Amino acid sequence: MKVVTGGITAVTGILAAGMAAGIKKGDSPDLALIVSERDATVAGVFTTNAVVAPPLLLDRQRLRRGKGRAIIVNSGNANACTGRGGYKDAVAMAALTASALGIPPKDVYVGSTGVIGKPLPMEKLEAAIPLLAARLHHDGGEDAARAIMTTDTTVKTAAVSDTIGGRTVTVGGIAKGSGMIHPNMATMLAYLATDAQVPRAMLQRGLRQATEQSFNRIPVDGDTSTNDMVLCLANGMAGNRPLKPGSADARRFQSLLDHVCLDLAKKIAWDGEGATKFVELRVKGARTQADALRAAVTIATSSLVKTAWFGEDANWGRIMAALGRSGARIAEGRIAIMVGPVQIVRRGMGLGSDAEAQANAVMKAREFSVTVALGSGDAEATVWTTDLAPDYIKINASYRS
Amino acid sequence: MKVVTGGITAVTGILAAGMAAGIKKGDSPDLALIVSERDATVAGVFTTNAVVAPPLLLDRQRLRRGKGRAIIVNSGNANACTGRGGYKDAVAMAALTASALGIPPKDVYVGSTGVIGKPLPMEKLEAAIPLLAARLHHDGGEDAARAIMTTDTTVKTAAVSDTIGGRTVTVGGIAKGSGMIHPNMATMLAYLATDAQVPRAMLQRGLRQATEQSFNRIPVDGDTSTNDMVLCLANGMAGNRPLKPGSADARRFQSLLDHVCLDLAKKIAWDGEGATKFVELRVKGARTQADALRAAVTIATSSLVKTAWFGEDANWGRIMAALGRSGARIAEGRIAIMVGPVQIVRRGMGLGSDAEAQANAVMKAREFSVTVALGSGDAEATVWTTDLAPDYIKINASYRS
Repeated sequence: MKVVTGGITAVTGILAAGMAAGIKKGDSPDLALIVSERDATVAGVFTTNAVVAPPLLLDRQRLRRGKGRAIIVNSGNANACTGRGGYKDAVAMAALTASALGIPPKDVYVGSTGVIGKPLPMEKLEAAIPLLAARLHHDGGEDAARAIMTTDTTVKTAAVSDTIGGRTVTVGGIAKGSGMIHPNMATMLAYLATDAQVPRAMLQRGLRQATEQSFNRIPVDGDTSTNDMVLCLANGMAGNRPLKPGSADARRFQSLLDHVCLDLAKKIAWDGEGATKFVELRVKGARTQADALRAAVTIATSSLVKTAWFGEDANWGRIMAALGRSGARIAEGRIAIMVGPVQIVRRGMGLGSDAEAQANAVMKAREFSVTVALGSGDAEATVWTTDLAPDYIKINASYRS
Repeated sequence: MKVVTGGITAVTGILAAGMAAGIKKGDSPDLALIVSERDATVAGVFTTNAVVAPPLLLDRQRLRRGKGRAIIVNSGNANACTGRGGYKDAVAMAALTASALGIPPKDVYVGSTGVIGKPLPMEKLEAAIPLLAARLHHDGGEDAARAIMTTDTTVKTAAVSDTIGGRTVTVGGIAKGSGMIHPNMATMLAYLATDAQVPRAMLQRGLRQATEQSFNRIPVDGDTSTNDMVLCLANGMAGNRPLKPGSADARRFQSLLDHVCLDLAKKIAWDGEGATKFVELRVKGARTQADALRAAVTIATSSLVKTAWFGEDANWGRIMAALGRSGARIAEGRIAIMVGPVQIVRRGMGLGSDAEAQANAVMKAREFSVTVALGSGDAEATVWTTDLAPDYIKINASYRS
């Protein structure tokens, strides 16, 4: 596997563009377009929130065919809680794109992110989409990535390639998200593409699996959104033999997909609103995977644990308390906790102030790991998260104004 | 029912005291004692956290007899995650108290709150407890309330009385808690007393019911602690006829218990760490009570909703998103949301910027209500919570240092 530049447009036959359409205040880019030169197989994973934004309702329908050519995405307006009108707007946004590209509307997928409950400014989209289509180019991945940002402070792209079935196969992607991130993909969008020839069922299964181990492992603040989605286009232009389930080639392809999703997910976690610390949190020795994940997510979303991380304080009592309420089966007297390489808890009890002082020193770094060993089994789970810093509140108190 | 002064010592035959024993840094009071002049029936409700602090393990055992005379409580040290040594210390703390009061150790209950994972400074307790016993007096309720505070900014006491069975019956209490509060009573202590003569089973059932509707309805930050407890002593000194289950007198007594618990709970919620807004959040029209509570707690613990409250921004989209992930059964198109008297959402859609501006004006007050009507049934639940303000992080990042 090789890391390559270009993000989603590193993939053969993928064009992209981004522009400022005036949906956001000011001059920020807010409209992105991704297009495959040839018909692509499409897979998708969507929010589990019971309130689902109209663009996702449309995409879910279109995904039944499992085919497509283009993805149009705006930021600045989520087109959520907008009722029938919002659905019509999503359909119109796809139709405008189809018309500008000369392809059938059913081949266009739609994404939106931003403020909930405002109608999309359709006249702005009408004016912008033809201009955007004219800007499509083979290295537009970063422009597209920039145009889907909301409170993000960094552009998020990733791409890797490998030789599969005798051909160079690439998987690339862009993502947006920072804060409002949850195990179930809160307010995050990720668009991937690959030139591999992949059977549709394998692509869907593979994308779900990659999502589960990446975007669903970045609990930042416990909130999920109405608009989260991950879509992947596979246009087959690498010319590889179609992948067979269970084959070594299929596993190599899955590794590419996993890598791009995890890379983008970590970039989202790192960009947690106002975050000053990036924490890899591993829970091991759990009785089941579900227990391990439950414990990890409860710790990673605890406001008390996260503020202690901000304070560079190895306050393991808060981790114990979070574990205790997580619902995971634990035996207090078997628990060990490490901060980086420094053990601070053994058999459920603290190892004293020297150990804690060393752990506090580890926590001075911008990135560190925390390992919680439950001593109750063999299952484990890793999540990536951040501290909770005062800027989180500043950003979220004023986001709409 | 009549509100009376004096807190827990408004109750006939209840003495209390508080002092600085040197467990906390500085000169803050950190040791409280509550004593009944006569043998009392005792009821208790404890944390549901799987990590349970030693004092609670001891109290649970003593509660099997359902009798007692005294409660000794320290702040500044939770005596949690302290293993066998911590349990021995809790037993010794009770024994020291029993010896100072000349009563059997089995009649003494123990509470602790503060930092997790440090051994109790037993030599300080040995020196202090006899002095504390000597300070017991009939209006020591507030001193005791002050001595159990940790990050609290206000002293929390409550008392009410009523004529029951021909006698004046009083219920009084003290509590501590601020932040780290959860539906399941995180890092909160409440000690109640009554002079009513109450059968033990009724007292236990009544205390659980009152707790359910009060301390379990103040979700502030989603964290629960290892040390939460609510205890109630009933010494029968009012001389009323023993209450009969289902009688009008029993209901009047329950109202007193409910009132004191709710009053203390609201004071805890109001004292949420760094909070600037106090919000009464009511979810109605749910299919079941469990759905109503689930929805209310999810909204009330959403960092995004709470930061919007801090920002005085009627950002109802965040409430919709929280509802959607709550697990409660909802129909998006039936949801209505009000801020105070101002409706901002009807049938799942926003009512526009005029309505929002009016709602924002309501949110300028320090207290306001938010009502979410699901339109799916008849069940409802009310919780009391606060905004999430930058001081929350400041307080919790530095709590140990």
